[in-house]
Amino acid sequence: MPQERPQVAIIMGSQSDWETMKNAADTLDALDVGYEARIVSAHRTPDRMFAFAKGAREEGFQVIIAGAGGAAHLPGMVAALTPLPVFGVPVQSRTMSGTDSLYSIVQMPAGIPVGTLAIGRAGAVNAALLAAAVLALSDPDLADRLDEYRARQTASVADYPIDEAP
Amino acid sequence: MPQERPQVAIIMGSQSDWETMKNAADTLDALDVGYEARIVSAHRTPDRMFAFAKGAREEGFQVIIAGAGGAAHLPGMVAALTPLPVFGVPVQSRTMSGTDSLYSIVQMPAGIPVGTLAIGRAGAVNAALLAAAVLALSDPDLADRLDEYRARQTASVADYPIDEAP
Amino acid sequence: MPQERPQVAIIMGSQSDWETMKNAADTLDALDVGYEARIVSAHRTPDRMFAFAKGAREEGFQVIIAGAGGAAHLPGMVAALTPLPVFGVPVQSRTMSGTDSLYSIVQMPAGIPVGTLAIGRAGAVNAALLAAAVLALSDPDLADRLDEYRARQTASVADYPIDEAP
Amino acid sequence: MPQERPQVAIIMGSQSDWETMKNAADTLDALDVGYEARIVSAHRTPDRMFAFAKGAREEGFQVIIAGAGGAAHLPGMVAALTPLPVFGVPVQSRTMSGTDSLYSIVQMPAGIPVGTLAIGRAGAVNAALLAAAVLALSDPDLADRLDEYRARQTASVADYPIDEAP
Amino acid sequence: MPQERPQVAIIMGSQSDWETMKNAADTLDALDVGYEARIVSAHRTPDRMFAFAKGAREEGFQVIIAGAGGAAHLPGMVAALTPLPVFGVPVQSRTMSGTDSLYSIVQMPAGIPVGTLAIGRAGAVNAALLAAAVLALSDPDLADRLDEYRARQTASVADYPIDEAP
Amino acid sequence: MPQERPQVAIIMGSQSDWETMKNAADTLDALDVGYEARIVSAHRTPDRMFAFAKGAREEGFQVIIAGAGGAAHLPGMVAALTPLPVFGVPVQSRTMSGTDSLYSIVQMPAGIPVGTLAIGRAGAVNAALLAAAVLALSDPDLADRLDEYRARQTASVADYPIDEAP
Amino acid sequence: MPQERPQVAIIMGSQSDWETMKNAADTLDALDVGYEARIVSAHRTPDRMFAFAKGAREEGFQVIIAGAGGAAHLPGMVAALTPLPVFGVPVQSRTMSGTDSLYSIVQMPAGIPVGTLAIGRAGAVNAALLAAAVLALSDPDLADRLDEYRARQTASVADYPIDEAP
Amino acid sequence: MPQERPQVAIIMGSQSDWETMKNAADTLDALDVGYEARIVSAHRTPDRMFAFAKGAREEGFQVIIAGAGGAAHLPGMVAALTPLPVFGVPVQSRTMSGTDSLYSIVQMPAGIPVGTLAIGRAGAVNAALLAAAVLALSDPDLADRLDEYRARQTASVADYPIDEAP
Repeated sequence: MPQERPQVAIIMGSQSDWETMKNAADTLDALDVGYEARIVSAHRTPDRMFAFAKGAREEGFQVIIAGAGGAAHLPGMVAALTPLPVFGVPVQSRTMSGTDSLYSIVQMPAGIPVGTLAIGRAGAVNAALLAAAVLALSDPDLADRLDEYRARQTASVADYPIDEAP
Repeated sequence: MPQERPQVAIIMGSQSDWETMKNAADTLDALDVGYEARIVSAHRTPDRMFAFAKGAREEGFQVIIAGAGGAAHLPGMVAALTPLPVFGVPVQSRTMSGTDSLYSIVQMPAGIPVGTLAIGRAGAVNAALLAAAVLALSDPDLADRLDEYRARQTASVADYPIDEAP
Repeated sequence: MPQERPQVAIIMGSQSDWETMKNAADTLDALDVGYEARIVSAHRTPDRMFAFAKGAREEGFQVIIAGAGGAAHLPGMVAALTPLPVFGVPVQSRTMSGTDSLYSIVQMPAGIPVGTLAIGRAGAVNAALLAAAVLALSDPDLADRLDEYRARQTASVADYPIDEAP
Repeated sequence: MPQERPQVAIIMGSQSDWETMKNAADTLDALDVGYEARIVSAHRTPDRMFAFAKGAREEGFQVIIAGAGGAAHLPGMVAALTPLPVFGVPVQSRTMSGTDSLYSIVQMPAGIPVGTLAIGRAGAVNAALLAAAVLALSDPDLADRLDEYRARQTASVADYPIDEAP
Repeated sequence: MPQERPQVAIIMGSQSDWETMKNAADTLDALDVGYEARIVSAHRTPDRMFAFAKGAREEGFQVIIAGAGGAAHLPGMVAALTPLPVFGVPVQSRTMSGTDSLYSIVQMPAGIPVGTLAIGRAGAVNAALLAAAVLALSDPDLADRLDEYRARQTASVADYPIDEAP
Repeated sequence: MPQERPQVAIIMGSQSDWETMKNAADTLDALDVGYEARIVSAHRTPDRMFAFAKGAREEGFQVIIAGAGGAAHLPGMVAALTPLPVFGVPVQSRTMSGTDSLYSIVQMPAGIPVGTLAIGRAGAVNAALLAAAVLALSDPDLADRLDEYRARQTASVADYPIDEAP
Repeated sequence: MPQERPQVAIIMGSQSDWETMKNAADTLDALDVGYEARIVSAHRTPDRMFAFAKGAREEGFQVIIAGAGGAAHLPGMVAALTPLPVFGVPVQSRTMSGTDSLYSIVQMPAGIPVGTLAIGRAGAVNAALLAAAVLALSDPDLADRLDEYRARQTASVADYPIDEAP
Repeated sequence: MPQERPQVAIIMGSQSDWETMKNAADTLDALDVGYEARIVSAHRTPDRMFAFAKGAREEGFQVIIAGAGGAAHLPGMVAALTPLPVFGVPVQSRTMSGTDSLYSIVQMPAGIPVGTLAIGRAGAVNAALLAAAVLALSDPDLADRLDEYRARQTASVADYPIDEAP
């Protein structure tokens, strides 16, 4: 049951973030949640960022997932410009392993929230799951799909560890 | 227009977290969003935590705000037990200023998301604002109130700094 | 002199932790201490975790070794649910090298203890040695084996460093 | 039912650590576990430390709790000299808030384990609880007292936070 | 020889940053460099921030000093919107002592530079001195004043430390 | 329009820093800004460093870019010896990933400023862009070239991420 | 038996460091080792620093103790300019508690050593003790005094902690 | 002019530290300073460590260089047992890149000094240079050799960086 219009925007600061953020897209695919992925750089394309963020609600998006690394300003700036819920994914940076990305995203001042996920791939997957949980509040079918996703995840955990071939 | 049933649960690991988490409650009050605040300790009351988390959707909650400090397991464990969106607030700890709280909440593995806010008071306020943004997706009146809240916030920023009396 | 029933449970959050935790198993093997290794995920299998932890004493376990990475909640949650001694091993995480795992395990609040070992392989070996030291308090044969293990360890330290072939 | 001979040694590097380590003593008192508290400095009294650690088993101690701050070598050195289980408490240091204490205690190399607790007061309380859990393995009465302690702890958690008088 | 039009803009995210940023203003006063101090919040007043940054060159500013704390996006966002040199001052934050502010300001991606100074008061003073050094490149009088400022600073360093009255 | 005399000095502590600092040189080349690159070690060639820094203004340099790693004293010491603006680039160190370099450069005391850029390659590129922004204040042609550089940078950002061939 | 000429130079970056460095002076006094304390700022008085460091051996100094905070360049720069042993004391900084001071002093590149002590008061005391240990190598009387100092220190450690009056 | 008896002891916790500590040996070789390298583990061979440290002065050693990683207790424990100057080298650890080693060595309490060098190879080289500087105080020939070593080091720094073949 694919969505007519994408409910989720996945934005990222550069093409290099796609390797991480694609995990958000794949997770939304698995849950049959519509999304659109765009490159929106707070620093290199600030006008595009302003236009996107201010128009996101009008475009029909309901949740924004934003990934960025280093001095990661994209999630917070988008959150400053839209009333939609924004979830931030700290992309693992080269020199500080994403600690800089994490602090730049999560330590927002009172007034403008960004729901921040873990650094890197896990964070991208979880941003998608959190977006789905939000959308599921008013979409019983999605709530069912999310319940099934979680049930499958639980069922997939083996009881005992096994030695892997070297 | 107060809510009949509280849509938001504000839970925390101990009474001492209330000084921080009260800021979430106050913010929800300002937005006229119903909530209930409870003490649920993952470590000292694990059964209460399990019962709460498993029953939260049935109780009618739509969003859970969980605050905890140190090895802060409450937000992640609740997220493991409910499909509802969970927002975590790292309470400022005494020895590590909340860095331990932050890492314990935000670095969740792929599969179980916690949308994490800033350490301390700012995070508590923002957890409430993020919960309101989520609820506003299907509540136009709340969306208006949230827009007004943000507009007032913008209007309250003075143009010039002033020297304060010593 | 193998144990009839395993005295030590080695649990871990996922198959990927086995590479680290196998070092605990190997060390217990070397000391002829019985153990059982299981995958118990606090986040993906919370019910399994609850059932395991609540029943561990009844199952006959005397010590629990729990390894986990990232926002590592397994050791602390198990400790909240059993009166048995719990030793935690922070598994080296990808983005933070295990600092997040360490803080999430060691910074437990007063009331629920987790004896935490070093990050990674050294911690897994030492969790086994600490478990053996605990069991040796009431098992003179094991105390002897542990003394021998330590004596061999001391004897194995060469007096002078040697240049290794490149 | 006081112990004839103390089963637990609480040692610390200096008088100034007593403010923290007294919490371990108080917790053992509450559980009716016998202990003896001594000042043993790895750096200022290395001979005393050697003598204590080498003789601890002969003295009848079963568990050693060691607290130290900064470059905290006491727990690890004692663990190198005794087969008894050693639990380490990182005392909060002035300049690094105990991060240096924590790393110096927990990051032991494979071969010599120290079960490390949280920085500061919480760690001291928990070292006592962990020692009690170890002793309870062969002391059913203590096991009962520990169960009661934990039950009281659980029961003492209020259901709702309350505003405290300013 | 006061400036007709201010060459330096001192902007900050909130009134609470003024305590820190006033040190930049005082230093520019001491060097007789004209400036204007404004509150421009990237998060709470993003439109004001955009308008300011895009119009700064037209307004006649030559250097921008921007102070912010926490997830400090102001310096980087302004730098994204103006070709003028931007110097950033990480304001000491409550929970992370300014480490978050520092990382959020200094770790800018290639393409948009922010010259970052030390956390807190020292950084504010130095941002002013760096701005003056830039302006002095084309203002010989200011270059002289700056030389004198530095000479006085050198001369003010006593040869020997003195015990201060308790 | 190449410069007759180089306006920018790019200095670094050792040949091994050139891999990073070459990015500053390439960026200045792209902007047609004259520069000279030299090895000046604060620790191994302190006299050369003193002579360079004291004579830099006389040599005709207008901006100094200094890169160094570890206990990186070069930028700060040069800034102590010249009134010219100094921009510092923390070179990524082997053991601390450049955190030591960053702290050693950015945490200058009040009185001697170093405008610090990001760790590694991004910082080297940005030091060049910041130097160009400073020089452009009195060089309209350079200002135009810098505007074009930034416009090209903005135009080069694709609208959508693409999957890259594995 | 006071020294005719001071063997130890205690230098520091500013008067404010004296509170810390006075502990080095007091310790040398207790050991009857001659010293001279001076303010030598690498950043504000670079010429004085150069002159001091280059002339220290000629002046008759044998060991240099250098204390500094923040981007602490004094110990390393002095070490670059003298063949005498240099011991560095990281002064506790306001914003980073001395972590910046520590990294700036200890992470010297191969070729120029600084023997670094702990942050703050303990480091200042120990710098004096280390200087005395060095001088004692060729001064049997000082060796005896140092042995006595250490013996008194050992003897001063009480056997048991005592509750202090509140 | 080789030494009859070695003046410097280079000790390390394990064979694996030799890769790092060999740089100290090579540097002493280059300066024609006699040394002996031994493996002395504080944790695995505490008796050997005690015997070595207590007898080091009698053996004729004048300076001790001690390298260790992780919870690195060797330098501090040896310093507690000998009046000789001890210089510590934090060996780069696997999980924390040597930050744990550094804190464990440098943060010694007042009373027992360890002159700490940089993490890894640079620290090993510098420990040797610092030992040589200490010995040179009473050995004019070594002082000359050290001056020459430093002069060669200065002379070896090229004036300009060169592009290296890829």
